[in-house]
Amino acid sequence: MKRVAIVGATGAVGRTMLSILQDREFPLTELRLMASARSAGSKVETKWGEVEVEDLATCDPSGIDIALFSAGGARSKAFAHKFVEAGAVVVDNSSAFRMEPNVPLVVAGVNDHAAGDHQGIIANPNCTTMTIMMAAGPLHRAVGLNQMIASSYQSVSGSGMQGMKELSHQIDAMRDNPDALATGTWEDPGSGLYERPIGFNVLPMAGSLVDTYTDEEWKLVNETRKILEAPEVAVEPLCVRVPVMVGHGIAASMWFDRDLSRDEALELLAGAPGIQVWNEKTPTPLDSAGIDDVLVGRVRETVGRPGGVSLWAVGDNLRKGAALNAVQIAELL
Amino acid sequence: MKRVAIVGATGAVGRTMLSILQDREFPLTELRLMASARSAGSKVETKWGEVEVEDLATCDPSGIDIALFSAGGARSKAFAHKFVEAGAVVVDNSSAFRMEPNVPLVVAGVNDHAAGDHQGIIANPNCTTMTIMMAAGPLHRAVGLNQMIASSYQSVSGSGMQGMKELSHQIDAMRDNPDALATGTWEDPGSGLYERPIGFNVLPMAGSLVDTYTDEEWKLVNETRKILEAPEVAVEPLCVRVPVMVGHGIAASMWFDRDLSRDEALELLAGAPGIQVWNEKTPTPLDSAGIDDVLVGRVRETVGRPGGVSLWAVGDNLRKGAALNAVQIAELL
Repeated sequence: MKRVAIVGATGAVGRTMLSILQDREFPLTELRLMASARSAGSKVETKWGEVEVEDLATCDPSGIDIALFSAGGARSKAFAHKFVEAGAVVVDNSSAFRMEPNVPLVVAGVNDHAAGDHQGIIANPNCTTMTIMMAAGPLHRAVGLNQMIASSYQSVSGSGMQGMKELSHQIDAMRDNPDALATGTWEDPGSGLYERPIGFNVLPMAGSLVDTYTDEEWKLVNETRKILEAPEVAVEPLCVRVPVMVGHGIAASMWFDRDLSRDEALELLAGAPGIQVWNEKTPTPLDSAGIDDVLVGRVRETVGRPGGVSLWAVGDNLRKGAALNAVQIAELL
Repeated sequence: MKRVAIVGATGAVGRTMLSILQDREFPLTELRLMASARSAGSKVETKWGEVEVEDLATCDPSGIDIALFSAGGARSKAFAHKFVEAGAVVVDNSSAFRMEPNVPLVVAGVNDHAAGDHQGIIANPNCTTMTIMMAAGPLHRAVGLNQMIASSYQSVSGSGMQGMKELSHQIDAMRDNPDALATGTWEDPGSGLYERPIGFNVLPMAGSLVDTYTDEEWKLVNETRKILEAPEVAVEPLCVRVPVMVGHGIAASMWFDRDLSRDEALELLAGAPGIQVWNEKTPTPLDSAGIDDVLVGRVRETVGRPGGVSLWAVGDNLRKGAALNAVQIAELL
């Protein structure tokens, strides 16, 4: 039985963490919720009684066994070590510590063993990377991944509740005039979060440019290598935001140490934990929203450069892409 | 001066053809409009006076010099030869004749020379293929394309006006409950055109399955080879429908006969007709709607398998992707 804290409890991922702890009847003896000063003092009804949200900046982390952090990289950097020093294991959903050598980066079901070797902090991978790792992991274990070319179709909730609000607002402002959308005479509804409108649009540059790739794309490259323990794997990434509320899709073409047939890939995927392979229907983001499993479809042998396998994976970015995996890591502890 | 007919004049592409003929002050002496019996008899105001829509099934094609067909493959197969026999050159926007050896497949600005060698029918390529060819063509001419891995982000107007109606309808039905979209408890708004809802969703299988790839994906493979006159080019395709009204985006990673640097690629693209390379901003479908040029962005050297170039191209699928290119072919005649 554990004393658990959710840090960033009022955000999109934090709320999902609470809901998943409740659904899975996580064996906890005490639940604490932390957020920024703005949300502090508000009360949240939980399965374990009403909990008052504490101010992260001033709270005392003593007595916490596991802290699930999802409050952004800056807050993780500022507060995670304080929690660790007070005795907690921090499962951090931000990118703050993911690439640090002494921080395990764990996709539950793919590299669970890595969770054992922590020094107080375990990192939760990026939501897009997580989704494709659920399919790439079992294939890599069997035939050794060499190269992956991936394009994402990422939902706005990957940017938190603000992303969902921005899409809702823009859809409301733009939907009454489909002709304007078709002829380029639409009025800009204003964007707070993204550079360009996401309503009725796609933004082929999720994240911020580092050089000619974005930080989000580099996560896909570097986290894939760390999770699969395959530092030589070549990953060619493109991260694109699409006007979907929840559910990150990712299309990948992969080549391995040897040729892989469709039948063999399907067999390897069928036995893997945490995924469902759909053959009859093609899984979409709407199908993935609200469920734990990552959905895999369009499994096919590459025609462009034979020997590989192309596929499509889609998962709830708030659940397996974030909150669920963090809770699963907590369960591994 | 030419006598021109638009066949399928009341559809999304047919209407755009008329608008483009007018905008470009196409030198025509007579304009005729044909559609199905349902639309026949309606009157359309044009720059060249009011034109009554004729019933394609019963009209007499005599005297037409150029017929721009966009009424679906079945009608092209049924009627194009009748028009040719009556003396017209048919520019066909359907897939009916694209892969026939004696039918040129022309992207204006990329392989104009092919238009000269027709036997009455010239085919207009698939809208997704057209968009990426505008960027791949100039690179191929300079350094020889070997391999292309492409994922599309295709708008609903690629399915005609019905696609736009379906997206509008579903957005109206689904937008009031973003929480339901986020938790998978949404009510299915009903789909007439697509297998699954396209509102707040992406469908990672545009077209109909032929084997493990769709007809739309095979077009990208086969039409690329024909347009570039490079039957050995390896193309790995994925075609995905996104909830956008107009504007097809396509992400491609390409490798050539030799390594290509980003600077060289940018130089080759800067001099190519019909495209704009955006460096500061990233072009989106909304930016492409209503304009003639294909917009190219995210030009970068591949990190996954060095030596190649990845980029993003987006174009108005009703204009360059269909109607504009058909009119440009007519201008080449």
